[in-house]
Amino acid sequence: MVGGGLGSQVGVAHRVAACMDGLFEFSAGAVDVDPVKSRADGIGLGLPEDRAYGAWREMLDAERQRSDRLDLVTVATPNVTHFEIVRAFLDAGFNVLCEKPFTLDVGEAEELVRLAREKKSVCGVNFGFSGYPMVRQARAMSKAGELGRVRVVVMEFAHGFHARADDADNPRIRWRYDPKQAGKSAVLADAGIHALHMGGYIIGQSVAEVSADFVSCAPGRLLEDDAALQIRFADGAVGRLWASAIAVGQMHGLSIRVFGEKGGLRWHQEEPNQIIWSPLDEPSRTLERGASGLHPIAARGSRIPVGHPEGMLEAFANIYGDLHGAIAAAHSGRRAGAAEDFPGFDAGLEMVKVVQAATTSSKNRGQWTPV
Amino acid sequence: MVGGGLGSQVGVAHRVAACMDGLFEFSAGAVDVDPVKSRADGIGLGLPEDRAYGAWREMLDAERQRSDRLDLVTVATPNVTHFEIVRAFLDAGFNVLCEKPFTLDVGEAEELVRLAREKKSVCGVNFGFSGYPMVRQARAMSKAGELGRVRVVVMEFAHGFHARADDADNPRIRWRYDPKQAGKSAVLADAGIHALHMGGYIIGQSVAEVSADFVSCAPGRLLEDDAALQIRFADGAVGRLWASAIAVGQMHGLSIRVFGEKGGLRWHQEEPNQIIWSPLDEPSRTLERGASGLHPIAARGSRIPVGHPEGMLEAFANIYGDLHGAIAAAHSGRRAGAAEDFPGFDAGLEMVKVVQAATTSSKNRGQWTPV
Amino acid sequence: MVGGGLGSQVGVAHRVAACMDGLFEFSAGAVDVDPVKSRADGIGLGLPEDRAYGAWREMLDAERQRSDRLDLVTVATPNVTHFEIVRAFLDAGFNVLCEKPFTLDVGEAEELVRLAREKKSVCGVNFGFSGYPMVRQARAMSKAGELGRVRVVVMEFAHGFHARADDADNPRIRWRYDPKQAGKSAVLADAGIHALHMGGYIIGQSVAEVSADFVSCAPGRLLEDDAALQIRFADGAVGRLWASAIAVGQMHGLSIRVFGEKGGLRWHQEEPNQIIWSPLDEPSRTLERGASGLHPIAARGSRIPVGHPEGMLEAFANIYGDLHGAIAAAHSGRRAGAAEDFPGFDAGLEMVKVVQAATTSSKNRGQWTPV
Amino acid sequence: MVGGGLGSQVGVAHRVAACMDGLFEFSAGAVDVDPVKSRADGIGLGLPEDRAYGAWREMLDAERQRSDRLDLVTVATPNVTHFEIVRAFLDAGFNVLCEKPFTLDVGEAEELVRLAREKKSVCGVNFGFSGYPMVRQARAMSKAGELGRVRVVVMEFAHGFHARADDADNPRIRWRYDPKQAGKSAVLADAGIHALHMGGYIIGQSVAEVSADFVSCAPGRLLEDDAALQIRFADGAVGRLWASAIAVGQMHGLSIRVFGEKGGLRWHQEEPNQIIWSPLDEPSRTLERGASGLHPIAARGSRIPVGHPEGMLEAFANIYGDLHGAIAAAHSGRRAGAAEDFPGFDAGLEMVKVVQAATTSSKNRGQWTPV
Repeated sequence: MVGGGLGSQVGVAHRVAACMDGLFEFSAGAVDVDPVKSRADGIGLGLPEDRAYGAWREMLDAERQRSDRLDLVTVATPNVTHFEIVRAFLDAGFNVLCEKPFTLDVGEAEELVRLAREKKSVCGVNFGFSGYPMVRQARAMSKAGELGRVRVVVMEFAHGFHARADDADNPRIRWRYDPKQAGKSAVLADAGIHALHMGGYIIGQSVAEVSADFVSCAPGRLLEDDAALQIRFADGAVGRLWASAIAVGQMHGLSIRVFGEKGGLRWHQEEPNQIIWSPLDEPSRTLERGASGLHPIAARGSRIPVGHPEGMLEAFANIYGDLHGAIAAAHSGRRAGAAEDFPGFDAGLEMVKVVQAATTSSKNRGQWTPV
Repeated sequence: MVGGGLGSQVGVAHRVAACMDGLFEFSAGAVDVDPVKSRADGIGLGLPEDRAYGAWREMLDAERQRSDRLDLVTVATPNVTHFEIVRAFLDAGFNVLCEKPFTLDVGEAEELVRLAREKKSVCGVNFGFSGYPMVRQARAMSKAGELGRVRVVVMEFAHGFHARADDADNPRIRWRYDPKQAGKSAVLADAGIHALHMGGYIIGQSVAEVSADFVSCAPGRLLEDDAALQIRFADGAVGRLWASAIAVGQMHGLSIRVFGEKGGLRWHQEEPNQIIWSPLDEPSRTLERGASGLHPIAARGSRIPVGHPEGMLEAFANIYGDLHGAIAAAHSGRRAGAAEDFPGFDAGLEMVKVVQAATTSSKNRGQWTPV
Repeated sequence: MVGGGLGSQVGVAHRVAACMDGLFEFSAGAVDVDPVKSRADGIGLGLPEDRAYGAWREMLDAERQRSDRLDLVTVATPNVTHFEIVRAFLDAGFNVLCEKPFTLDVGEAEELVRLAREKKSVCGVNFGFSGYPMVRQARAMSKAGELGRVRVVVMEFAHGFHARADDADNPRIRWRYDPKQAGKSAVLADAGIHALHMGGYIIGQSVAEVSADFVSCAPGRLLEDDAALQIRFADGAVGRLWASAIAVGQMHGLSIRVFGEKGGLRWHQEEPNQIIWSPLDEPSRTLERGASGLHPIAARGSRIPVGHPEGMLEAFANIYGDLHGAIAAAHSGRRAGAAEDFPGFDAGLEMVKVVQAATTSSKNRGQWTPV
Repeated sequence: MVGGGLGSQVGVAHRVAACMDGLFEFSAGAVDVDPVKSRADGIGLGLPEDRAYGAWREMLDAERQRSDRLDLVTVATPNVTHFEIVRAFLDAGFNVLCEKPFTLDVGEAEELVRLAREKKSVCGVNFGFSGYPMVRQARAMSKAGELGRVRVVVMEFAHGFHARADDADNPRIRWRYDPKQAGKSAVLADAGIHALHMGGYIIGQSVAEVSADFVSCAPGRLLEDDAALQIRFADGAVGRLWASAIAVGQMHGLSIRVFGEKGGLRWHQEEPNQIIWSPLDEPSRTLERGASGLHPIAARGSRIPVGHPEGMLEAFANIYGDLHGAIAAAHSGRRAGAAEDFPGFDAGLEMVKVVQAATTSSKNRGQWTPV
């Protein structure tokens, strides 16, 4: 693991998720930008002394020469550094899971996609919410034609954690609205693309075109803290996306609704173990994680019996499980099967393109812009 | 009452709502376009024989000469006829409540507004959902500054009742997508403007500019059955509106969320007796219709104790109550007080303008268009 | 109407509900125990001067001699007075709707049942919540065998409006815990029997036996403010009832859950337009008031389209509608049909017996006691 | 780990939970009653060959002699075997976490409590739901006096997974209703005591007296599949408990409601990251796991940021975390601090006593029976 040290929220999630099913162990890391802290924290997190590195380059140099080399390197560093680090590890032949947003720039993302293909590495971008069993159930239902042709997908990721007007003084929040650190977009790149990725993941379509409206509500912000996107997917579905960081009171602001010719689906992260499925002209029904009758991919991602809640860490663990399957398949020369359902670098690239197109569209007062 | 006969859904609602509090009686009507049916149904609905008219002109001629003249004429006829009928009754000095959408055309709406002002009539457009006590509580909270400056308003009115692809053969649905009968817009004019009116009503701002994306999902429709609007309100608030008729499974698809500097509010028509109020950095709390501590206008619109549900008819009855108050005030030469909170012809006109601007914007691929 | 004057909560509900569908008019009343206030309030409520009486005896004497005699007398006076007033009006040949609890004493209730039968009057007790369309849908589903044999019914009516410890000084609350005014039971007689009646109404079984646990939580109360009942219904169903007045935070504390061999049903007054229906081994589905596919009695009790909420007043109005049907049938010599679904004096008597048995059981430390 | 092999639901939960935070490793086990399968499954679950035992006695003999002896032995075998296995491991000086129900017999439970005290072992019974951060928040609020004196606790654990009448043929269900394997109680001992433990855990009171009503709904069952308990806690709180296995449609049937003089609390396992907190005479508010302002014990048990859901495995992991803390404290000679919040053998004993008292009470037709 690169980054994700003691102060990091997402670092904990990665470590728990990777190890949850006993598929991976946390074996080596350079977990902080400060070399001293990096080594100390690595040891504090249970690493052996010789694999608790002070910096990612040091880690790369040492690990590439080991016979028990890492199966997977997770990159959870600040966004601006993703490109350089991922490229270096790819170059050395490692498999990589990169935190989102993949890169800040389309060219960089394309280079990483190309390199991953060349190296035949197993590579993922952590759109971790796509690991929820019921999100995968939704994808499987769509793929099986149970919704008919998809007409409209409504996606939200809108929370209120940056609503405080004087948060500009809070360093944990400030950097997100600083173009130098965060790139061209704040709430879309940070939150919105999760929802957008999930929408496309469920319906199996990529984004073709967007019209965006970005606004900065809190004073002094250089990047948007509220954004609406209108979307055309490649096979004709229409998308509506709302992302916000000023939606006070919305804790669990991630939801996906899919409306097809034959029925509608609703999923909210606040109750991630359920889908509401509404077949046309029939009463809505609640599908439960762990119940019988689900598609295999949803059943496969469950650990505990129906009725007991699973949470986000278990969803992330499903991504790690898929990566593990793909790595094992690669080792054995087989192609991965259903494990391909994890989001790869291509998904990361697509979302970088969407952010760029949306940024352009918003500057051009909502002009429809191809992705 | 003109229109709203036995086959009409909204007719029942008007009769029950108008009479609920004993303020109005249903005294005269021309309730169907077919003269024979109009008289028969009027009598069937309890009208005396001499006031169960065969046509609205007949009703107008007779009623204008009566000493016990009607306090209020409700117009619930097909949309295309609103203008002519309302104008005639206004001309004759009647007070009028018109179903929405007010008119199909901005010029017509403006003429009615002008005429109403000239005649000093009490006039309303039935944006009936604004009669819910907790919607009025939201308005009062906003007006009192409890939300701080409003940043974003998210409005939805999205149902699935026109999702069936072959509904083109259903006359109850077909006319809504026929420009000759419905005008330039279907789901925005039919459903969306309810939500949009409520958004503006709550925050006390009118619509300045819109960017719209209309799509027709079901085959063969000439007007939109799904629409997204981005909105700028006059005092700077940002609006996000989604209206749909193909959102299968959404029964109660009307909701309003308001996010201000100091807190956020959520209201759903499915649980109309509650508001979720989230003060910044504090836990969300549930405000209940009928509880102590509400603003007077919310308290005034309640009939039964806290905890028992009131519904849509009671909301409509609150509009009728306000009209009654305004009429009584007009009779006595006083100005109406808080009773002014009902939506008047100006609100009707504003929404006609919004529909026109949105239609234009959508044709121009989302170009921002002033209202 | 006797009782239910200006200060009364339930009086408003009766007047709105009775008149909602234009079936009844509020024509005469003695609405307060104070003769002067009674006349003034009656006039204030719209009664003609000669029918705004000062006392119920005066009303009885005058009304029994009129040719346009009242179709129905609603008795909404304090509980202790029900018996005398109802008996007098029955004796004079009137139809009567009595507020619950019917009487304070089994003997009195039995006499009224006997008298009503003798007079062939149309008589009801206002278990008004049984008028909700979806409650009737539940009853119809049970009757049609869709649940299979009913095993367990879980009933709650638990609110927190008497939770304040010093409410003993509040006269609106104090009388409820005073055995002289309220009888032998407070929260069971006031709230719990609503839920219990609904349970029996839905499954079509009467109560055979109870075991009760009454407690007084707030200091100084002579009657219970929290009660649990275990129940055996006549055909073998098991009942669990919890009634409380100290359940702080429960606004809408009325719910019924029915579990049969073939499926389970849940209904909450807070969302009265829905039933959750769970067929055995299948996903739960949400049945909506006003949707197609409901049993006729549920469809009949709806006024507005599916998706819009109806509330408690509409439920009460359905009771009045049934009474109207039964009265019309009686006039014409026909037997009432489905209109028989309203709760009659027999239901009132049953609940009085339950209260007595539960009171006895609780005193005997939960001994099972026949009803 | 003893028991909890490949076919076991709870085995997975223990392994994931124990290892989630990197505090424990799964190092040795006898995971099945069949020696061959036990060894094979142990290896399949990642154990080294020499610590994948064929039987628990073999494991005990080998492990007691190792220098790297196990920190904790988890016993997840069939209920009838708990006593013998736990006693043997205790005797050999191991710390033990035992699945519930602790034992089938009060005498056995008392012996284990005595032995654990004598050995100064760290011992727990897996009432794992008490590990949810918001359950602990509830306990902390109660302890801090925020609810005032607790009046009534309403506890439910009612699901529908044994509702099928012909489940008597399903071995996974049949044994639960067989007194030889399950003891004197089925649904109370299996599910109900979880809820009852949580109720007592939150309010900090033990059970003094119970009155029980057991019924067997599905044909052929010798033990109860639906049970209601009335409870008096030691310091005067009243308890209402409903446990069921035939409540079709209730997936997440575990909930706790606590009503005190100063406010009410509600928690449902279906939304385990929230508590609804209703201070007297104020609007209800939603407290969120991970939010600021919670009590330290609730904050301590959170892994991911507010708004993202945690689930049951994380709750179980908190129990393991507490055990780890207690073991570390024991090693260092310190007393454990807040880590004492996990349920120990005394809690297991109390619940065994409750089951016995309830069984007796139910046989005596609900007679109040001391625990």
